[in-house]
This record gives sequence, C-alpha cells and structure tokens, in this order.
Amino acid sequence: MAYHLYYWPGIQGRGEFVRLALEDSGADYVDVARQPGGMAEMVELMMGDHVAHPPFAPPFLKDGDVLVGQTAAILLYLAPRLDLAPTDEAGRLWVHQLQLTIADVVAEAHDSHHPIAASLYYDDQKPEAHRRAKEFRDDRIPTFLNWFERVLAPHIFLAGDQLTYADLSLFQLVEGLTYAFPRATARALAQTPRVVALHDTVAQRPRLRAYLDSRRRLPFNTEDVFRHYPELDA
Amino acid sequence: MAYHLYYWPGIQGRGEFVRLALEDSGADYVDVARQPGGMAEMVELMMGDHVAHPPFAPPFLKDGDVLVGQTAAILLYLAPRLDLAPTDEAGRLWVHQLQLTIADVVAEAHDSHHPIAASLYYDDQKPEAHRRAKEFRDDRIPTFLNWFERVLAPHIFLAGDQLTYADLSLFQLVEGLTYAFPRATARALAQTPRVVALHDTVAQRPRLRAYLDSRRRLPFNTEDVFRHYPELDA
Repeated sequence: MAYHLYYWPGIQGRGEFVRLALEDSGADYVDVARQPGGMAEMVELMMGDHVAHPPFAPPFLKDGDVLVGQTAAILLYLAPRLDLAPTDEAGRLWVHQLQLTIADVVAEAHDSHHPIAASLYYDDQKPEAHRRAKEFRDDRIPTFLNWFERVLAPHIFLAGDQLTYADLSLFQLVEGLTYAFPRATARALAQTPRVVALHDTVAQRPRLRAYLDSRRRLPFNTEDVFRHYPELDA
Repeated sequence: MAYHLYYWPGIQGRGEFVRLALEDSGADYVDVARQPGGMAEMVELMMGDHVAHPPFAPPFLKDGDVLVGQTAAILLYLAPRLDLAPTDEAGRLWVHQLQLTIADVVAEAHDSHHPIAASLYYDDQKPEAHRRAKEFRDDRIPTFLNWFERVLAPHIFLAGDQLTYADLSLFQLVEGLTYAFPRATARALAQTPRVVALHDTVAQRPRLRAYLDSRRRLPFNTEDVFRHYPELDA
C-alpha cells in the first residue's frame, strides 16, 4: 500500500526532506494535499477527535494504521523500510542525530526571514529579519556547513560509504540555502568542498534526478521555509 | 557502567530533559562537566579528530562506545534502557514525536529572549525580544499547551496509562515556562487543567521529588534557555 504524505501544497518546505527519501527509493506514495480533496483530509487528521496520535503540524505520514509527524521522526520510521540508514542501533541513531541537526538549520533558516513570528508577514518584521539574516549568513551557515564538512572528512557520505536519508537532507539543505542566500552560501561552500561533492553526487542519482526534473518538484518560492529576499543576502 | 552526560554546567537547559529521565529512573550517571576536568573532556569529545560521531552541541551522552547527541535522540536511546517508552514501534515513535514537539517549544522559548542571535547578549536585542516574546506568550504558549491538553484528554499520561520520558519533559516545559513567563503561563495553564495535573503528578514521583529537592537540581537563572525578564512577561 502506498505511503500517504501530508504537507502544505505549493511549497517544498519540511515535506521535501520526506519526498526526497521516498523519491530516491522509488517508493509508492501519494502527496495527499496536492490531490483533490486532500487538504480537507490533512486537516481532519490534525483536528479530528478520533485521531489517537494527532500531529502538531505537517508534514506527517500515514502508513496503514501508523500516523507519524515531525520530519525527523518520519524519516526514522521510513529508513529501515526504504533501506536509507544502517540497521545497527548506533548507526541508526547517528543518522537521526545528523537529521536533527539539519532540522535545526532549517528552523534557523526560516527564522532568518521570520524572526518575530511565523504568524506575521515578512513585511511586518523586515528590520528584525535584516539583523537576524546577517547573523545567520555570517555565522550560522558557515558554522553548520563546516561541521558537516568535518563529519564528511573520512567518508563520501555522512554516515560512511552508503547513502542515508541524512545525505539526501544535506543535499536539500544546500539547495535551500543556495536559493535563499546565494552569495553567503557560495562563500561558505567555497570552504566546504566535501559538502559540495556530496551535494553533486546526490544530484546525479538517477531517480532523484528524474524527480528534480519532474513537475512533482515544486520550485522554491517566497512562501517557503527557504526564501530568497535579495536584501537579506550580502 | 554509569552513563556519562555532557552538558554546560550552571544551567538546566536542554540537558535537564535528559537528567530528569536519568533521575526518575534511578539510573547511575555522571554529570561530567560539573566534575573537575569535565569541561575539557566535553570539549574534547566535540572537537577531537578521533571522534567518529562528534556532537554538534551539548547535551550528549556517552554509554560505553556509543556517543549520542541531540536531546531527543538521547532520550530515544535511553528509553528502552530506562523503561521510559512503549516497546512497540508506533508507541515508541509517538513518544519521540511528542518530545520533538517539546523541543520545538524549547527552541522558541530560547528565541523569545534571543530573537536575533544566540551569540549576542540579550541587551543587544531587547526591542526585538520585546516583540517576539509578545507573540510567544500570546500565541505560541497557548497553542502548544492546548495541543498537549488535547493529547492528554483520553489518558493520565501523554502516551497512555504509563509514564514516558515525554511526560517528564512536559513537566520540565511547564516548569521552564512558569519561571520565564509566570503571568502568561498561568493564563494558559488556567485553560489546560490536564497539563497542570500531569505536571503535579510528575512532581510527586519520589525519585524526581528527591532530585528536585537536591543540589543536583540547578536553579533557573538568566543564563539559561528559559529566562525570566519581567519586561518580557505581561
């Protein structure tokens, strides 16, 4: 039976980390909220009184009777089914730890344009975004990418010689940062050649390449978690 | 062999979620950075070239050869060893999902006083903190606590009739929010009686009570993730 992925239609967002795992594995899945009637089904699973494990927010995944939210937890669930992580406990946890660190960067990338509240418009928090984005691009982007560079030093992939979902997610992080902060990210990537090499290796995987070239891959835009506002890049 | 917990000495912070799990279980552990020479050992594990799985940041846990970082991942690792989560996959993931949602609130609580950068002082970002804290206390605190209230509706504990580490963490979240935003949190808790009841139940657990009354429990302070600045509460 197909996996059912629930996420906001129209953006890559956090859902994209799950999509990449499903697409790279050739898994059968439905991107429910992009189908007719899908948004109502998504809201019902979040709000319905009969739902035993209601997710706080999208993305979430339904696999038969199992409903799981939080991007990193979804990937933890999918990994053994899609062969995207080691099967030993320490290896599995390490990949999860990498994913949680990527999630931290993603949250910071979001807050670089929404430092006051996600519920307000960017236009309502531009001076604050200007300050926060400067810290993010001058300090946080290099700090995080340098850490991933160090992790990659002994291996091609983050957790060894086999690709895991954390590698797909690091690819997506580089994509998102490059879209949102092209100048700052290029500067940081000039210092992290292993991160660049990993990104390029992932981009050439046949199933992923086919996905990226398809209409299923939504374009980045300024409703997304990663947003390009030229005034925030420098 | 004792678990070795590594976290900044002097604050509860994210390390406290791990401490509560260890303390409530009566587990044997060393809070390494609070011992003589412990800080150097902590830094070495983060920076040493020989470390295969270097944590990005504290807290992290060492258990023999296993080194695991990220608060939620540490608790995922400890849960089966301390009997603090269901053993079936769906139950285990649900508790982890709850923990990741608590981690999201904790990150937002931190950013309420540091909306621009963790590397700057609070005094360098007071106007921005004033705005973000208002959104946090008026919108986010009630939104999150109402969600936990709903999850608690059919049970005493978050994941059923047995306590899990997510319950200990929700206790700590209520403690932290009450310290940092006493007025706003009291207003939200007046609408979430099940959250209050869970907090009070956890506080009466004998081993946890003994810990809270001991010198091992550090007081909250304004170097911590949860900070009380009266001007940010209203």
